[in-house]
Amino acid sequence: MFSVTVRDHMMIAHSFRGEVFGPAQRLHGATYVVDATFRRPELNSDGVVVDIGRATTVLREILSELNYRNLDDEPVFAGVNTTTEVLARHIADRLAERARSGDLGEGARGLTGIAVTLHESHIAWATFERSL
Amino acid sequence: MFSVTVRDHMMIAHSFRGEVFGPAQRLHGATYVVDATFRRPELNSDGVVVDIGRATTVLREILSELNYRNLDDEPVFAGVNTTTEVLARHIADRLAERARSGDLGEGARGLTGIAVTLHESHIAWATFERSL
Amino acid sequence: MFSVTVRDHMMIAHSFRGEVFGPAQRLHGATYVVDATFRRPELNSDGVVVDIGRATTVLREILSELNYRNLDDEPVFAGVNTTTEVLARHIADRLAERARSGDLGEGARGLTGIAVTLHESHIAWATFERSL
Amino acid sequence: MFSVTVRDHMMIAHSFRGEVFGPAQRLHGATYVVDATFRRPELNSDGVVVDIGRATTVLREILSELNYRNLDDEPVFAGVNTTTEVLARHIADRLAERARSGDLGEGARGLTGIAVTLHESHIAWATFERSL
Amino acid sequence: MFSVTVRDHMMIAHSFRGEVFGPAQRLHGATYVVDATFRRPELNSDGVVVDIGRATTVLREILSELNYRNLDDEPVFAGVNTTTEVLARHIADRLAERARSGDLGEGARGLTGIAVTLHESHIAWATFERSL
Amino acid sequence: MFSVTVRDHMMIAHSFRGEVFGPAQRLHGATYVVDATFRRPELNSDGVVVDIGRATTVLREILSELNYRNLDDEPVFAGVNTTTEVLARHIADRLAERARSGDLGEGARGLTGIAVTLHESHIAWATFERSL
Repeated sequence: MFSVTVRDHMMIAHSFRGEVFGPAQRLHGATYVVDATFRRPELNSDGVVVDIGRATTVLREILSELNYRNLDDEPVFAGVNTTTEVLARHIADRLAERARSGDLGEGARGLTGIAVTLHESHIAWATFERSL
Repeated sequence: MFSVTVRDHMMIAHSFRGEVFGPAQRLHGATYVVDATFRRPELNSDGVVVDIGRATTVLREILSELNYRNLDDEPVFAGVNTTTEVLARHIADRLAERARSGDLGEGARGLTGIAVTLHESHIAWATFERSL
Repeated sequence: MFSVTVRDHMMIAHSFRGEVFGPAQRLHGATYVVDATFRRPELNSDGVVVDIGRATTVLREILSELNYRNLDDEPVFAGVNTTTEVLARHIADRLAERARSGDLGEGARGLTGIAVTLHESHIAWATFERSL
Repeated sequence: MFSVTVRDHMMIAHSFRGEVFGPAQRLHGATYVVDATFRRPELNSDGVVVDIGRATTVLREILSELNYRNLDDEPVFAGVNTTTEVLARHIADRLAERARSGDLGEGARGLTGIAVTLHESHIAWATFERSL
Repeated sequence: MFSVTVRDHMMIAHSFRGEVFGPAQRLHGATYVVDATFRRPELNSDGVVVDIGRATTVLREILSELNYRNLDDEPVFAGVNTTTEVLARHIADRLAERARSGDLGEGARGLTGIAVTLHESHIAWATFERSL
Repeated sequence: MFSVTVRDHMMIAHSFRGEVFGPAQRLHGATYVVDATFRRPELNSDGVVVDIGRATTVLREILSELNYRNLDDEPVFAGVNTTTEVLARHIADRLAERARSGDLGEGARGLTGIAVTLHESHIAWATFERSL
């Protein structure tokens, strides 16, 4: 099995509902360093998992819809705690849509899985993995 | 599949038995940077894999039983080489016990796997993964 | 010259005033990984720059006044852009006050300088250095 | 499941054929930081996944055949784009041969998988995983 | 004293003349992870060391003149070994020219120093520091 | 001013005398990731700060005298707490001796400073800098 990962980041504000979150119930924020991983059992005809230039561009486009925003005000997350886990799934699902629509190139049709890791600090991170 | 990882560390002394270990048969030591990963297929009702505050506390408690010690003198490791691999399993097994006993919260009942990585230097690390 | 550095982090929300900041004029947030460095020409009688336990505790106390907050609402920053540079100076100045007041121990009287680096992402960071 | 990883690096020149590679069609180069991971379900009689000294030596030998070279001139890669993915597979396959030939020690007979990750920069890396 | 650092990278081929370089006399290559640091004693009127957007853009422009190239063929380095040290100075000098010409903004007139670090691997890096 | 840094590591056991050290008064250990930095105002005739191969070899030789040892038993540290700061100075002083004796090559005569950083964990490190 092959995989390729590209890294980018976003800087957002948000707050959480639920006593379990303690002081994180207050409006605060995070830098998420985002690793997007693309998997497939065989390489495409160019000898790559995915056109890394396109993967980088698509990841940046997806993050730009969240970057420099207060996620408490984003309709797409209405009624949902934007935990690191939830954001990892959101980004992985957007990447999967873009892969299926051809935005990662025809050569990306062979992708079988996507994983997204969000690093919220040097001591905590979360991952969501899905098939394609 | 979702996962969350928290990082901590411990500083221990030990020695190894067996010619394969070469100079590491002498009493020496290590800083282990410890990454504890918790996995589950669906998030709990708070939208998280595990209460990250509890996970951090439990990991610290487990490491505090080893931290600043000579592992050659610890009864729990009598007759065992405390290799990086063995210590990774030990910590993962302790985390599994704590998860089952409810110390990670009721919401942690859905956890299906635990992995522990111990980084012994910038160029070597070991991991043990188990189901829950 | 000797120095010792300890690392911690904080997660805050804020916004900036001024067209130069572009989209960062919107309410957003950041994880700041904070490195606090203490300098002195000679070690104290224990053979250290500073009691690392006390340094860690004092840094955490200073960060806890900012952590999980919207800095736009903090009176101490009224009328000031809480840029990475400004926050690095703020934390260094608080550490200097605590060192002078004896909170880092009598042995810390020999400290001659403090530097604070705030990492706002994997590709950008800022430092403020001052004498003591 | 246990795993152990060792890290080394190599510095090579190469160029790619195919419009998808854009400016990387020109002769350029890369430092690849190489992580070699060895997996097995149970530890050997020494309490390790593999003799880490032998694993480090064998990895270095494999990399030395590529290090400080222009891969465009290496017969083993004739007609092949030496992408990060292709190089990861090449190194994993060489490691598998060496494990089977006994160069990682008799205790390494229990290895069931190998993974190789090549980091080409701080923002991109590729992995190839295979069974043994 | 304040400083701000931004990180980018480039991937180049080159070779060295001189027996001291051993196998690096062959055509090979490197990924250089480049940290550009800007220093000044006081912040500008926006509360920053330099417009980080402009600094990032100018650094990328400077690196794009070297990226994906064989430095042995670049006239600017004719007769010069393009060691990590020499490349660090080259990039720092180009940044200094751009700062003086106003490309980093009027607010950058207060810069007093520039440092450039090139990481050639996880175990080696070089820095050049200069005044402005 | 130019500098070059090479990284290596060592794994040692030790204990500290003094109540300020708390649980670190017990026999424990550490992995120290060691960064050795060499400084000079101008490059030598090869265009480098120091022959990086020789610097790496000499650093490894110095660390091998400490590696895999219990520092409490080493005569060179009799009556001294082997804190991270003390070890950084010890290694820097050994490097300075080796530079003066010519072991770093004739071209290293122009070195003007040495700094050694010991990382004891992901959240703490110490540096000693000296002139040559």
